[in-house]
Amino acid sequence: MSTRIADHRLHRRVTSAEEAAALITHGMTVGMSGFTGSGYPKAVPTALGKRIEAEHAAGRPMRVKIWTGASTGPELDGALAKADGIELRLPYNSDPIARERINRGEMDYLDMHLSQVAPMAWQGFLGPLDVAVIEVTGITADGSLVPSSSVGNNKTWLDHAQGVILEVNRWQNPALEGMHDIYYGTALPPHRVPIPLVRPDDRIGQPTFRCDLDRIIAIVETDAPDRNLPFTPPDETARGIAAHLLDFLEHEVGKGRLPASLLPIQSGVGNIANAVLAGLADGPFHDMTAYTEVIQDGMLDLLDSGRLRVASATAFSLSPDAALRINAEMARYRDRLILRPQEISNHPELIRRLGCIAMNGLIEADIYGNVNSTCVMGSRVQNGIGGSGDFARNAYISIFMTPSTAKGGAISAIVPQVAHVDHIMQDVAVLVTEQGLADMRGLSPRKRAALVIENCAHPAYRDVLRDYFDRAMAGAYGRHAPSLPAEALSWHQRFMDTGTMRA
Amino acid sequence: MSTRIADHRLHRRVTSAEEAAALITHGMTVGMSGFTGSGYPKAVPTALGKRIEAEHAAGRPMRVKIWTGASTGPELDGALAKADGIELRLPYNSDPIARERINRGEMDYLDMHLSQVAPMAWQGFLGPLDVAVIEVTGITADGSLVPSSSVGNNKTWLDHAQGVILEVNRWQNPALEGMHDIYYGTALPPHRVPIPLVRPDDRIGQPTFRCDLDRIIAIVETDAPDRNLPFTPPDETARGIAAHLLDFLEHEVGKGRLPASLLPIQSGVGNIANAVLAGLADGPFHDMTAYTEVIQDGMLDLLDSGRLRVASATAFSLSPDAALRINAEMARYRDRLILRPQEISNHPELIRRLGCIAMNGLIEADIYGNVNSTCVMGSRVQNGIGGSGDFARNAYISIFMTPSTAKGGAISAIVPQVAHVDHIMQDVAVLVTEQGLADMRGLSPRKRAALVIENCAHPAYRDVLRDYFDRAMAGAYGRHAPSLPAEALSWHQRFMDTGTMRA
Repeated sequence: MSTRIADHRLHRRVTSAEEAAALITHGMTVGMSGFTGSGYPKAVPTALGKRIEAEHAAGRPMRVKIWTGASTGPELDGALAKADGIELRLPYNSDPIARERINRGEMDYLDMHLSQVAPMAWQGFLGPLDVAVIEVTGITADGSLVPSSSVGNNKTWLDHAQGVILEVNRWQNPALEGMHDIYYGTALPPHRVPIPLVRPDDRIGQPTFRCDLDRIIAIVETDAPDRNLPFTPPDETARGIAAHLLDFLEHEVGKGRLPASLLPIQSGVGNIANAVLAGLADGPFHDMTAYTEVIQDGMLDLLDSGRLRVASATAFSLSPDAALRINAEMARYRDRLILRPQEISNHPELIRRLGCIAMNGLIEADIYGNVNSTCVMGSRVQNGIGGSGDFARNAYISIFMTPSTAKGGAISAIVPQVAHVDHIMQDVAVLVTEQGLADMRGLSPRKRAALVIENCAHPAYRDVLRDYFDRAMAGAYGRHAPSLPAEALSWHQRFMDTGTMRA
Repeated sequence: MSTRIADHRLHRRVTSAEEAAALITHGMTVGMSGFTGSGYPKAVPTALGKRIEAEHAAGRPMRVKIWTGASTGPELDGALAKADGIELRLPYNSDPIARERINRGEMDYLDMHLSQVAPMAWQGFLGPLDVAVIEVTGITADGSLVPSSSVGNNKTWLDHAQGVILEVNRWQNPALEGMHDIYYGTALPPHRVPIPLVRPDDRIGQPTFRCDLDRIIAIVETDAPDRNLPFTPPDETARGIAAHLLDFLEHEVGKGRLPASLLPIQSGVGNIANAVLAGLADGPFHDMTAYTEVIQDGMLDLLDSGRLRVASATAFSLSPDAALRINAEMARYRDRLILRPQEISNHPELIRRLGCIAMNGLIEADIYGNVNSTCVMGSRVQNGIGGSGDFARNAYISIFMTPSTAKGGAISAIVPQVAHVDHIMQDVAVLVTEQGLADMRGLSPRKRAALVIENCAHPAYRDVLRDYFDRAMAGAYGRHAPSLPAEALSWHQRFMDTGTMRA
């Protein structure tokens, strides 16, 4: 028996992944751990996928609703979507097989603000949660659960599920114990009180999850890393974006509008975000903090550089190399990293209070600074809104970053009108491409448009954007934010028809 | 000398509106009081408008930037816009002359989340504030300022302006003293702390504004009511909307998802909001509270009915009759009404904590529940986003209400795609028209569309909406939220071309 299960009362619950998966039946709602490819259960979902395939082969229906923290891994979303076993998925997905099913209309997808998932589950309108499947690092002698490499909504799933299946993953370093801060002070209104966090490194909870042992219906032992992709090194475009952004932050410090150590940074995932973090590691700012959603490679580098004092998040999202590196030195990182439930890492109250500098990617922005983060050509969901809305609206400065073109220039990231809106212009203060930066704070829509076209659009698209804007100023129904409805989305239609937005 | 100025040190500052207005010069930024037509200065802006007209007649340039709480009155926005004296206006306007100038492209307009105005002014990127012009009810013997019928951003304008002009309006009832709760605990990050408000009736501040007397450059005495329009009684459509909404709230209480006394209600302004409040006065709920932006007529009726225990807001917005009525009985209402700065009445931290039931109007919604609150046909601004974003995203239940058609049926309030987005589908839980109610919580975009078309759209538009959705399901780039970019905004173009959205 694994030494990771110190509570002997639970040894008799240990079973195989197949037996555990058999406890999940058609129509159930299953809350799984997992956030940005970290800390998701690996064995039970794989076994569940096989079981669903067998049921389907036998002519029997079997589909489940899957709730998670955010994205998981191929052993979970991939396996279940491949088996066509998911009826509804929430709140965020980045698995390509699941994405394809969603966009074929075969699978329902609830794309939610990540701060709101747990509170909405408490409210009850999402329906009951039948089973939770949660990866943990270990179980202490008193039955407390040591979280894994993500926290996500695990506290809520453990509290609310009728039955709990645990995966105890001995690949995760036992030195993770003590890194987590699980806040149990949340409630439904009218019983909510202020969340007592005033600095990114405040610890306001406990290091482990509680769980009523009677509800633990199975425990499966595993030994496997989170399966994430390696990061490609930042290219010239990403470095260009980072350089513009660092110039802007220096400028704001110079103006006295930001402290010399900045304010807590939030950084999305991906290569551009990593380039920005790499830039910060070489930049002029010291004693920085991060209050963010995920700890990616660049954040570890920033910690190692000595520039970042502490980082708070809800999950890791590391390349295989970085995962091995942190796992080997967990004890050294433990005091400078805090993982919290996602309703705390992304809480509007805390983001507004701390004054985060939010830095997120996008699919497209329009000349007024409205941002589409989710739906390619307005309808085809890529991943989801994730926490970008939690951070963008409540940030001290809300920054969005993107290369100015995609698909070799066939797509302009700056369009006359976005085909889907995730972030309204009021929530987008600064837009950055490799071409330059538009600081739109305090500007009316018309002035925003001029700045975005000149500073951010790719030169190949600038003239046509200027032409659209000029004609909109002449012919629009109103000139507050001039638009031409018959033409506003024509670039998207052209891409769908011809493979390029260029006329 | 008015007995409203108890601090004798200030008597020598009393002057005429014309002399006070002469202290405002070309290019200045002026922060004025005023929120939803209440508590705005009346004499100085009128004199300023005349002065600007005289300057223009003499061939001299004169324009100013005007910051307020929200909408004001004809003596302010109307007079200054008529004189073409406004270079930039923020954060909300409902004056028809100013609206026309904005939509002709003659005046810049910053349409802002109302909770963010004061914090953004503190940040500094909006530039310095030269003069504040603030209506007060009186000045106490120690130089404290008794607020008027709105609080808005007055604390911030008084704190930050280089010079302060006060209008002491003796029309306002001196019994207003003690109704206000001015919280002085705000700060810029990293110095922000939890706001210690946990119930709508908590008082966390002081009843008056502080102001450094040296910065008071002029005081003008006035005697005039806030100029608001009478409400028309709710028509059948408004009563229908209210009935659907009350059924829904009863249903939620029955399900145990809302307390029997509901949660703090937020209500927008207008006839539909008043119909809902009238419905609540006759409904089954007792001991209710309101945590909202404005106190309109229906809210007073609800207080009088005994169903509403207390209401917190930042301003009154009363018909002339109701203004006279409350002014005559101010002492009786004072303990059950609280007026706060708008960064507190609309603070995301507090709205989320209290779990408000948000009820707001709209211009149009699309089949997925995205909402356009501001721009007719996508470009012509009507009023502004106001506080709807503060409340909708952080509410316990975010409800939007509208008649299903406008302009005698020529405009459908439910369209394939909104031409401008203020509230993304994630922030819109329930949509209500006189046709019915769509509870979209927990539904994927495709399921939302079916419900919105069947429950909310006018029968005259249902078939064409179904047809659009069916064809989008067949031909969209992705079927997560299917759309046809070439056709999505065609209803708006048709209205612009032919005067009706009907084919």
